[in-house]
Amino acid sequence: MLEKLKQDVCKANLDLVKYGLVIFTWGNVSAIDRESGLVVIKPSGVEYDNMTDDQMVVLDLEGNIVEGNLRPSSDTPTHLELYKAFPEIGGIVHTHSTYATAWSQAGMDLPIVGTTHADYFAGDIPCTRDMTEKEVTGGAYEKETGTVIIEKFAEINPMHIPGVLVKNHAPFTWGKDAHDAVHNSVVLEQIAKMAFVAQSVNPNMSMNPLLTTKHFERKHGANAYYGQK
Amino acid sequence: MLEKLKQDVCKANLDLVKYGLVIFTWGNVSAIDRESGLVVIKPSGVEYDNMTDDQMVVLDLEGNIVEGNLRPSSDTPTHLELYKAFPEIGGIVHTHSTYATAWSQAGMDLPIVGTTHADYFAGDIPCTRDMTEKEVTGGAYEKETGTVIIEKFAEINPMHIPGVLVKNHAPFTWGKDAHDAVHNSVVLEQIAKMAFVAQSVNPNMSMNPLLTTKHFERKHGANAYYGQK
Amino acid sequence: MLEKLKQDVCKANLDLVKYGLVIFTWGNVSAIDRESGLVVIKPSGVEYDNMTDDQMVVLDLEGNIVEGNLRPSSDTPTHLELYKAFPEIGGIVHTHSTYATAWSQAGMDLPIVGTTHADYFAGDIPCTRDMTEKEVTGGAYEKETGTVIIEKFAEINPMHIPGVLVKNHAPFTWGKDAHDAVHNSVVLEQIAKMAFVAQSVNPNMSMNPLLTTKHFERKHGANAYYGQK
Amino acid sequence: MLEKLKQDVCKANLDLVKYGLVIFTWGNVSAIDRESGLVVIKPSGVEYDNMTDDQMVVLDLEGNIVEGNLRPSSDTPTHLELYKAFPEIGGIVHTHSTYATAWSQAGMDLPIVGTTHADYFAGDIPCTRDMTEKEVTGGAYEKETGTVIIEKFAEINPMHIPGVLVKNHAPFTWGKDAHDAVHNSVVLEQIAKMAFVAQSVNPNMSMNPLLTTKHFERKHGANAYYGQK
Repeated sequence: MLEKLKQDVCKANLDLVKYGLVIFTWGNVSAIDRESGLVVIKPSGVEYDNMTDDQMVVLDLEGNIVEGNLRPSSDTPTHLELYKAFPEIGGIVHTHSTYATAWSQAGMDLPIVGTTHADYFAGDIPCTRDMTEKEVTGGAYEKETGTVIIEKFAEINPMHIPGVLVKNHAPFTWGKDAHDAVHNSVVLEQIAKMAFVAQSVNPNMSMNPLLTTKHFERKHGANAYYGQK
Repeated sequence: MLEKLKQDVCKANLDLVKYGLVIFTWGNVSAIDRESGLVVIKPSGVEYDNMTDDQMVVLDLEGNIVEGNLRPSSDTPTHLELYKAFPEIGGIVHTHSTYATAWSQAGMDLPIVGTTHADYFAGDIPCTRDMTEKEVTGGAYEKETGTVIIEKFAEINPMHIPGVLVKNHAPFTWGKDAHDAVHNSVVLEQIAKMAFVAQSVNPNMSMNPLLTTKHFERKHGANAYYGQK
Repeated sequence: MLEKLKQDVCKANLDLVKYGLVIFTWGNVSAIDRESGLVVIKPSGVEYDNMTDDQMVVLDLEGNIVEGNLRPSSDTPTHLELYKAFPEIGGIVHTHSTYATAWSQAGMDLPIVGTTHADYFAGDIPCTRDMTEKEVTGGAYEKETGTVIIEKFAEINPMHIPGVLVKNHAPFTWGKDAHDAVHNSVVLEQIAKMAFVAQSVNPNMSMNPLLTTKHFERKHGANAYYGQK
Repeated sequence: MLEKLKQDVCKANLDLVKYGLVIFTWGNVSAIDRESGLVVIKPSGVEYDNMTDDQMVVLDLEGNIVEGNLRPSSDTPTHLELYKAFPEIGGIVHTHSTYATAWSQAGMDLPIVGTTHADYFAGDIPCTRDMTEKEVTGGAYEKETGTVIIEKFAEINPMHIPGVLVKNHAPFTWGKDAHDAVHNSVVLEQIAKMAFVAQSVNPNMSMNPLLTTKHFERKHGANAYYGQK
C-alpha cells in the first residue's frame, strides 16, 4: 500500500545524506496521505546505506502501525502531532544538521537578516520554550515535543514559516510533501550558517520587513513571478 | 543567434555549481554582446542539473525577449541596469554564496585586509544602502536594486572594484566576460571567508593602502608582471 | 593471533580517515581482547593509505610486544592505562579532529547543550588538568597522560561519558569495541563543532538536565526504546 | 637538467590542490639543489590542471633563468632570499590557504596552544612587521618580503619554526625538501583553523611550554621516538 509515498519518503531520507544534513541515523522524514489519513515514516535507528522503500513504516494518525516490520522512528509522535495540527502540510523532516542545531542549542530564534531566508520563511524561525518536568519525564516526551512546537505557531501560519527550532534539540521543517520539506531543511541549514557568520561580523544586524514581504511574495504570493510557472 | 555567448553563459552558470557557490537555483550569470547590445542570461528557477545552452534567454537592454522559450532570471532588470551604467563590463554573476552573503546580511562593506583581496579588488567592497519603501514595493524592485548598486559606484571605477554586496541580500560580481565574472565571484567568497575569520581573531585589523595598490597594479596595472603575458 | 581483532582495529583506523577525523598519521585506534588481556593497536607513524591488518601490533597490558614487526603507536601507554582503569571498555580512539582538539586547546570542558550530545554522553565532557613538570618530563609522559584522564573519572562512569579532552592536546574516546569508540569519536567532533557555533551565537546557553537524562536513557538506559532492539 | 627535482616540485605543486590549500594559481612551491645552487620553481600564473614537470623554471640564486620557457612565479625573489638566509632548507611553499591567511591578515602571531602545533613548530609562528613605503614601492617588493621574514628569524632556528605569516599577505612554509614543506603547509592550515576555534571558545587560552618541548622533541629531537625510524 501507498507504494508511491513509500518511495518518496525513502528517497527523501536518502536526500538528507546527499545534502550533508545527517550522519549515522540522525534524521527522519515522513509524509502523509491526507485521503486515507495514513503516515509513512523512516524506521528507527536504521542506517541509510541500504535503506529500501519497503522498510518504511505505515501508521495511522493515532500511531497504530498499519504496515511494516520495523519500529517507526522514535520521533514519530512529534510528526503525528504536527500533521494533526497543521492540515496544510504533507511532509515533515527532522535532522540534527550542524548550524540549525547550534541555533537550537543556543535557544534562540533564527533571526531573519537576508532575502535567502525570506525566499522561504516569511520571518524569524522560532525556537521553542523549555519543556517542563512533566513534559520531559511524563511518558509522552516526543508527543509533548510536538505540543511545544504547535504552541509557537498559535499566531504563525506554518506555511509561511515552514520550520522550527526545538530548544536544546534540533530543527523540524515541513512542506507540501516530503521533497518540499527536505528542500526547506537544506535552506534552513544554509541560512543558519549565514546568520551565524553575519552575527559574528555584526551583532547589530537587522533587516527591513518590507524586503521580507517582497521576497516571500515574489516566490510564494498570489502574484509570484519567480521561476517558470 | 549568439551561439558562442550562450555556450559561455551556460558554462559559467554550471561553474557556479562546480565552485560551490550555489545550491538549487540560487544564482545566475549573464553576458552581453556589446556590438548588438544583446544580453544572454540564465532562465528563472531552472535547476542546473540538465541546463543546456539553448535554454539561455536573449534580451535587449530594455528587457525585451529576443530569443528563448523560458522566462529570464527574475534578477534580469538588475543585470540590465549594470550593463547600461558600466560600459566596460561584459559579464555579471549573482550568487547567494555563504560568506559573501553573510557580509551582505551584516550590512557591512567587506574590508580589504589582505593581498588576496587586493589582487582582484582595489579596496573595500561596498555594501549598498537600505532600499526605500518605494524602491522595494513600487513595482521595479529588481531594477532599483541596480540603481542602489550604481549609486555606490559614483566615485568608484567598477573595473577596480568588480563586485558589490547588496544589503540583506547577496553579492553581485562582474568582469570583462562571464568567465571573468565567475572568477571574481569565487574570489569574493574566499576573501569574505578569510575576513570573517581574521576579524574574529583580531577585530582591529588593518592594512597598509600602499600594499593594496602594489598588489592590484602588479596584476592589473599598466606594468603588470604577474602571469605569462 | 587475534586475526579478527586485528581486522577490526585496522578497519577502525581507516574509518578515521573516512569520517574526516585524521590527516597524515594523526590518530590511532586500539582494541582489547579481555579474555587474554592482549591489546591490538596501530603502528606508530604509519600512513593510512596502505595499512594492512598484519601491521597491527599486539601487546600485553604491561606494554610488552607479543606480535608485530613495527613499533606500536607512541600513545600506547595512554591506551594501556585506560584499559586497566576502565574494565568495561573494549576499544579506544585518539584523534586530533579539528573542533574537539580546539576545545582541548581552549582548556575547557565541552558543555552539554543539546540532545545530540546527550544521546551519547550523559553530561559535560571533561578536559584534563595541566600536567606537572614531572608528568611531562619524567620519562613516562604518555602513561601520565592516562593518569590525568583517569583522575577525571574518579566520580564519572566512563560508559556514561565515553570520552575526554586532554588539555592542550586532543580527545580520546572509547566504547565497547573499536567500532563503537570510532562512532563516539565522530559524535564528539560533531558536538564540539555545534557547541562552538552555539556558544558564538549565545555565550549564555544552557540545558535542562532532565533533557540530558531523558535522551541518554532512551538510547542507553534499561528501558531504551531507540532503534530496533 | 634536474629532472628529479622538477618532478618533485611539480608534484608538490599539485599536492597543494589535493590538500585544498590553493584555488586557481594561488600558490607556489620551489626546491633547491644545494650542490649546484640551482632552484626549481613553478611558473607564474599557470593553472594546476595541466601542469607538467617541464614547465618548471630553473634559476640560479641571483634569479637568472637557467632553463625554462615560462616566467617564474612572481614570488621567486622571496624564495631566493630564504634559500640564501636559511642554508638548512631544501623546499619552500607559499599559499593563500584560508585560515593561515586569515591570521596573516589579522597581523597576529599564530599562538601555540596545542600539541598538534608543537609536533611540527616549536613555538608561536611569527607574523612579520608592516613593510615600509620603500620596501613596498621601491622596485624590489618580493625581495623585501624575504627580508622582513628573515628579520623575524634573527633569533629563531628556521628548522624549529618552519613557517611564517607575512602580514596582510599569507603564509610561507619550508622544510628539508619540497614534500616536507608542503607537509608543513598542511599542518599550518590545520593548526590555524584550530587556533581560530579555540580562541573563539576561550580568548584566554594558554599552553605549558614544557609540553611544547616534549612534543617537538619526541618527533624531531635527538632521542625522537615517534614513528618507525
